[in-house]
Amino acid sequence: MKLDDVRVYSIPTFSSDTAPSPSTFVERWALARIQQSVSSARVRFMLWDGFELPYTAETPVATIVFKNRRALFSWVWDPDLNFGEAYMFGAVELHGDLVALLIEIYRALGRRAAPRHWWLWQESNDEHVARENVHRHYDLGNDFYSLWLDREMLYTCAYFPAPGDTLEQAQIAKMERVCRKLGLKAGERVIEAGCGWGSLALFMAREYGVSVRAFNISAEQIAYARARAQHEGLAGRVEFVEDDYRNVRGEYDAFVSVGMLEHVGLADYQTFGGVIERSLTAHGRGLLHFIGRNQPGELNPWIRKRIFPGAYPPALPEVFERVLEPWNLSVLDVENLRLHYASTLDHWRRRFEGAAEDVARMFDEAFVRAWRLYLAGSQAAFMTGTMQLFQVVFARGSSNEIPWTRRS
Amino acid sequence: MKLDDVRVYSIPTFSSDTAPSPSTFVERWALARIQQSVSSARVRFMLWDGFELPYTAETPVATIVFKNRRALFSWVWDPDLNFGEAYMFGAVELHGDLVALLIEIYRALGRRAAPRHWWLWQESNDEHVARENVHRHYDLGNDFYSLWLDREMLYTCAYFPAPGDTLEQAQIAKMERVCRKLGLKAGERVIEAGCGWGSLALFMAREYGVSVRAFNISAEQIAYARARAQHEGLAGRVEFVEDDYRNVRGEYDAFVSVGMLEHVGLADYQTFGGVIERSLTAHGRGLLHFIGRNQPGELNPWIRKRIFPGAYPPALPEVFERVLEPWNLSVLDVENLRLHYASTLDHWRRRFEGAAEDVARMFDEAFVRAWRLYLAGSQAAFMTGTMQLFQVVFARGSSNEIPWTRRS
Repeated sequence: MKLDDVRVYSIPTFSSDTAPSPSTFVERWALARIQQSVSSARVRFMLWDGFELPYTAETPVATIVFKNRRALFSWVWDPDLNFGEAYMFGAVELHGDLVALLIEIYRALGRRAAPRHWWLWQESNDEHVARENVHRHYDLGNDFYSLWLDREMLYTCAYFPAPGDTLEQAQIAKMERVCRKLGLKAGERVIEAGCGWGSLALFMAREYGVSVRAFNISAEQIAYARARAQHEGLAGRVEFVEDDYRNVRGEYDAFVSVGMLEHVGLADYQTFGGVIERSLTAHGRGLLHFIGRNQPGELNPWIRKRIFPGAYPPALPEVFERVLEPWNLSVLDVENLRLHYASTLDHWRRRFEGAAEDVARMFDEAFVRAWRLYLAGSQAAFMTGTMQLFQVVFARGSSNEIPWTRRS
Repeated sequence: MKLDDVRVYSIPTFSSDTAPSPSTFVERWALARIQQSVSSARVRFMLWDGFELPYTAETPVATIVFKNRRALFSWVWDPDLNFGEAYMFGAVELHGDLVALLIEIYRALGRRAAPRHWWLWQESNDEHVARENVHRHYDLGNDFYSLWLDREMLYTCAYFPAPGDTLEQAQIAKMERVCRKLGLKAGERVIEAGCGWGSLALFMAREYGVSVRAFNISAEQIAYARARAQHEGLAGRVEFVEDDYRNVRGEYDAFVSVGMLEHVGLADYQTFGGVIERSLTAHGRGLLHFIGRNQPGELNPWIRKRIFPGAYPPALPEVFERVLEPWNLSVLDVENLRLHYASTLDHWRRRFEGAAEDVARMFDEAFVRAWRLYLAGSQAAFMTGTMQLFQVVFARGSSNEIPWTRRS
């Protein structure tokens, strides 16, 4: 299956041709500038003709080879965008361990101050834009995702009680953990905003005896989830709604959203908080699970262009001030699972590589390279603390029906 | 023992005399205005001559009696300040359960939007002011505090693994919990900012084999803590320093501060964060335990005047943005223990009431009434969600030596 939207991948912005002539002084100078921008990274830089800068530090973890002039100068101009662009179309080759290479680069960049381009994030992901954004990522096809996700098709950070647990175990453990943090009791009503392929909604109904309304604007995912609910005989207790979170109606004992807040966008946080507010009973509580950051900053522009249009991973204060505070919702518990996301991504990436030929047949080689870079880059981001994974439990500020301890 | 500073208590701002003449129309109108401001509270209001407003709602939990005109009009003018002032000098009598009464009032006020008087909080608690503020509360005398605190003299929220645990058990459990969250290992170096009477510092050294430098600007507390360290043979591993947190020097594996951030004041948060930053090793981590709020707002002015000069309980974003974010410190874990603080305060208040005669002999009756109101009011604040108690665990953003799970 190949969607129209994926055509963007097949319009190359870079050529993979190797430059015909030896490198010039200016090109070598450009290489030096690039190396300087990540000077603490143990990475070797090379041009198409084999020219490389003197490298005297420790053994490099990898080598970056520019195949042509355009790739080289595009990195001087806008490395954040063109690292990915040049790599995905083969204008740059990366030799060595990709994750290790990206970790080196993230660490080196980490010493720069994060730029704040607020204007970028204040545009609203309204219902139309949100649908487009979600369509471009989550509607790539259930066949594609089933090649490398776990059996339950969970496309969010897993929780590994022990580091050596399998991905399937860890995704079950994550769902169990979410339910326990919410303190779900049989007969309660749960609203889920952004339900993916429906695994958590079905798990909550099956294991905790609650009824669930689960919203999602990905047509492919909703179709899959509905079929599963039918198949498991849970259609009476789990309703999958193909609609925007803004259209949630009704009152619920618990609100849960796993991996959707990243797609809401800052400009709509207060609206999102308002949906939570009006959905919760007097003793309602909720859980938000999302990719975040230590400091506000823009998402990498290449990831935004090719992988997650409209996405923004927030810093905790952005969530607390805009989503929870206006409604006097009270933060009860926060857990940072960043290293668990690094592990999750490691599993996904290895499975993805194992299925790379199938993926190339489904899409094309540029798609495979783009997703390889995205998965490896995300793993490196969580390994280096460039990204965080937060689970936030909250309740109405006036409610004393909150857990006495974490064990209760 | 009676300090000079406590003289403020013996200069009454209100008289406890009962007005000689019957109430007038204007006075009855004032009473109606006061009742209206907390109209949803199940509280009866009465004047000195027995006049009361028609009360048709549910059974009231308590009755407030104004003894004279000044008390009455001062409440119309500035209830936040004069509730406490009039009560402590006996110009108002409260009949019924004090905590229940205050819970009613907090709930009724909770429906008002919290005012934001930012200018109030931007004044710096510099070293001199901080010393004055601390002196006025924490130097009231170890004899006084030992009348109603637990055996270990911990004057911060306890942790009750089961609600029926004793205060002594709960304070030990709290220290144990702090150490476990910090993941202390024998031989590590810990810096503590604001160490009270030294219990946690001694506990960490004794139970976890770490060495501790503990800062405090309360002369009374430091003297007590040093004597304890000598007596327990821990003086070699726990150094109590009578100095301001701003003067912390050296590198440590862990930074801990329990119940001090409330006294730092917003204007000095970034300085406080800078102290954390320069104190931590590359893999350092820390814990902040503090009274906070769901939304920024000023502390009750009476509490600030009589109980905690210079104090400010922050909302989480204020702490994250000003203390942690500038230094790329990463939030690992947040726990809200508000109901545990309500229980802690219940224990303290009952012990305090049991020792009220001794306290009156040490100070005077106005002091007893002021502290009764402070303890009951704090309990009500934590019961109603007006105040929160946060424990925040953090680490350097670049460190992967963080706990894999909460159990590890």
